[in-house]
Amino acid sequence: MATISEVCRKAKENVQAIALASEQDMNAMLSSAAKALREKADDIIAENRKDIAVCTRGVQFIDRLMLDKKRIDGIAAGLEKLVELPCPVGEILEERTLYNGLQLRRVRVPLGVLGIIYEARPNVTADAIGLAIKSGNAVVLRGSKDAICSNKVITAVIKSAIGAAGYNPEFIQLIEDTSREGATEFMRMNGVVDVLIPRGSAGLIQNAVQNATVPIIETGTGNCHVYFEKTADIEKALPILINAKTQRTSVCNACESLLIDEAFAQKHLPAIVQALRDKNVEIVACEKCRALMPELTPATEEDFYAEFLALKISIKIVSGVDEAIAHVNRYSTHHSDSIVTEDAAAAEKFLNEVDSAAVYVNASTRFTDGFEFGLGAEMGISTQKLHARGPMGLRELTSYKYQVRGNGQIRG
Amino acid sequence: MATISEVCRKAKENVQAIALASEQDMNAMLSSAAKALREKADDIIAENRKDIAVCTRGVQFIDRLMLDKKRIDGIAAGLEKLVELPCPVGEILEERTLYNGLQLRRVRVPLGVLGIIYEARPNVTADAIGLAIKSGNAVVLRGSKDAICSNKVITAVIKSAIGAAGYNPEFIQLIEDTSREGATEFMRMNGVVDVLIPRGSAGLIQNAVQNATVPIIETGTGNCHVYFEKTADIEKALPILINAKTQRTSVCNACESLLIDEAFAQKHLPAIVQALRDKNVEIVACEKCRALMPELTPATEEDFYAEFLALKISIKIVSGVDEAIAHVNRYSTHHSDSIVTEDAAAAEKFLNEVDSAAVYVNASTRFTDGFEFGLGAEMGISTQKLHARGPMGLRELTSYKYQVRGNGQIRG
Repeated sequence: MATISEVCRKAKENVQAIALASEQDMNAMLSSAAKALREKADDIIAENRKDIAVCTRGVQFIDRLMLDKKRIDGIAAGLEKLVELPCPVGEILEERTLYNGLQLRRVRVPLGVLGIIYEARPNVTADAIGLAIKSGNAVVLRGSKDAICSNKVITAVIKSAIGAAGYNPEFIQLIEDTSREGATEFMRMNGVVDVLIPRGSAGLIQNAVQNATVPIIETGTGNCHVYFEKTADIEKALPILINAKTQRTSVCNACESLLIDEAFAQKHLPAIVQALRDKNVEIVACEKCRALMPELTPATEEDFYAEFLALKISIKIVSGVDEAIAHVNRYSTHHSDSIVTEDAAAAEKFLNEVDSAAVYVNASTRFTDGFEFGLGAEMGISTQKLHARGPMGLRELTSYKYQVRGNGQIRG
Repeated sequence: MATISEVCRKAKENVQAIALASEQDMNAMLSSAAKALREKADDIIAENRKDIAVCTRGVQFIDRLMLDKKRIDGIAAGLEKLVELPCPVGEILEERTLYNGLQLRRVRVPLGVLGIIYEARPNVTADAIGLAIKSGNAVVLRGSKDAICSNKVITAVIKSAIGAAGYNPEFIQLIEDTSREGATEFMRMNGVVDVLIPRGSAGLIQNAVQNATVPIIETGTGNCHVYFEKTADIEKALPILINAKTQRTSVCNACESLLIDEAFAQKHLPAIVQALRDKNVEIVACEKCRALMPELTPATEEDFYAEFLALKISIKIVSGVDEAIAHVNRYSTHHSDSIVTEDAAAAEKFLNEVDSAAVYVNASTRFTDGFEFGLGAEMGISTQKLHARGPMGLRELTSYKYQVRGNGQIRG
């Protein structure tokens, strides 16, 4: 088995195989990979069954791990969709002539070598390869031990298809050493890996934040808020809350906490609680809520920081938009937060002062997503402010360089 | 003395004092700070003398540390220059209506709390505060022990002037604990400090890369190359080389290594060596150079990786543009590299394939600078690919957020 360093260096040595590829070449790679995944579906499923055979985790986990023909077809369709998206590389972001005649151009270029570290979903393997191809990046994949046979076969099928189409596929590398020490070594491949993108649980991401020396993009932890301002229209408010909390609970853009203006709560808290209970949502609430409805379970300080990823919500009554903004900026993971209001001034204040990747007025937080935002594809949702914020599509997987053309200029 | 955590949290608590300031407010802060620095020049010089009195370092170090009226006037002028630059905050980067009627806007916002860690130059204190003000960011400064009295008085004078002008200056914080443990604690203030920008020696920057858990922007290490391609015009080549190597040797955009095509070297090596010797540049050279001029000192492998920051250069003969590009991509710090050529195809190949922040054709590497590039000011020069690359001006000190306006949209 190749060492982590060898695997990463191999991707870097072959970075120009994709960095210098034309868009036509990239599309040919994507199409041949999609075709091969469909053709080799039976082989992929057979390898996936080996992972499942040794998996001792629960049903939900195995569901995320499992592949069938329909899922493989979906993965292939994802690669084909990338063919239609414009390649961002080469875009001229700025162009001007300096005082001394130097022609300055700022040009979009690939990041170089992407490191992706992720958990059991084998579809991430193909998705990440596809996004890397269309953004001109080499990629080193490090999935979890639970999906190793699936990841190996998916990577092999894609690389073999790219090779058969006449291209060098070695800009794609899979780390087969799934040890914890191996992960840490991967996170410290400075000078070889240009950016590390951890995708998965909060624990995985925190491990990367604490241990990586390679620049990372933190993704996906979402303690998202919905705030009912006092002028909120209850007819909009309840559907937004129910959608944000219950449409899908295991995702980072689901609502975890509800803030309610005091006056609005006095009028509507019982209806809000009932609407949540109708959807089997467990409620923990602040003391002011409990003064109105003593049967509510008290919320702890930790509850307000929690990303439940379940049918559970914390509720807090606030005095107005200022307290709501202060609460969100303190407890939120700066992912997605929404105000429901009919007051334009309150809406603008919330939009401007809440420090999150996506801030909504009168809409569900569930829209924070590369596809919903029209990016066409997504590598994850950044919750940090450096480089990219919110959904990361192809453009967010690029950097830029300055190209400067002179005719002998020297500095005076 | 306040703890590191207290100092950082104080900046964060007051982040909205600058994040929500109007451009007019920012300019008033900058102007009052500049005026106060000039008025209090004697007090600043007196404190600076205390730093110098206890400094046991060499003359060059003390020169960087020393302030006089002229230098203070220059620092004040730098703040006044920021008044003229447009504030980047609030720029609408993208705006579109989604299929469901949601109005999506991507808006430029400040990064939040900048952490600046730097060495003995006290001018960085005022420069960083000025850049933070005009980009809407709070700032936590951590200078070195050698400049602590200077940094304290500069920060106090600026904060007092901002306060007297009617603004809350507490978004500006100076860490007075200059211990090594304190620096490490500062680098791990995740959730409080949004980005850490180390400015100074390669050792300082590597310390940040190894120890920071806050996202960092690596700045300024420059092993820059000049490459004489075989069609180079010697009349352009020598002035570019001499300017890049000798105009200022202690800076990151100075040339450290010269590559020469074999045919060009056979004809011109003695003239090149003579031109360098005329400027007292020490030369270390590859074996192929020594075959042509046996008196040259041999270069070691380490020499080709070295940032000399002195009158010293490494020279290597290459077989052509491919070997030159491969050498640069291997040994360069990806800062600034230049080709001297009359061959348009070689120029384009070098521009496209050299993986550096700034790539030049027929010009000195010394132009990689925020002022020269027309950014108006500069926080440093990024040598990483994430977030910002090359000179970082006000725009590079910002992030963005998505503002989404709806009228009750929920996800289906």
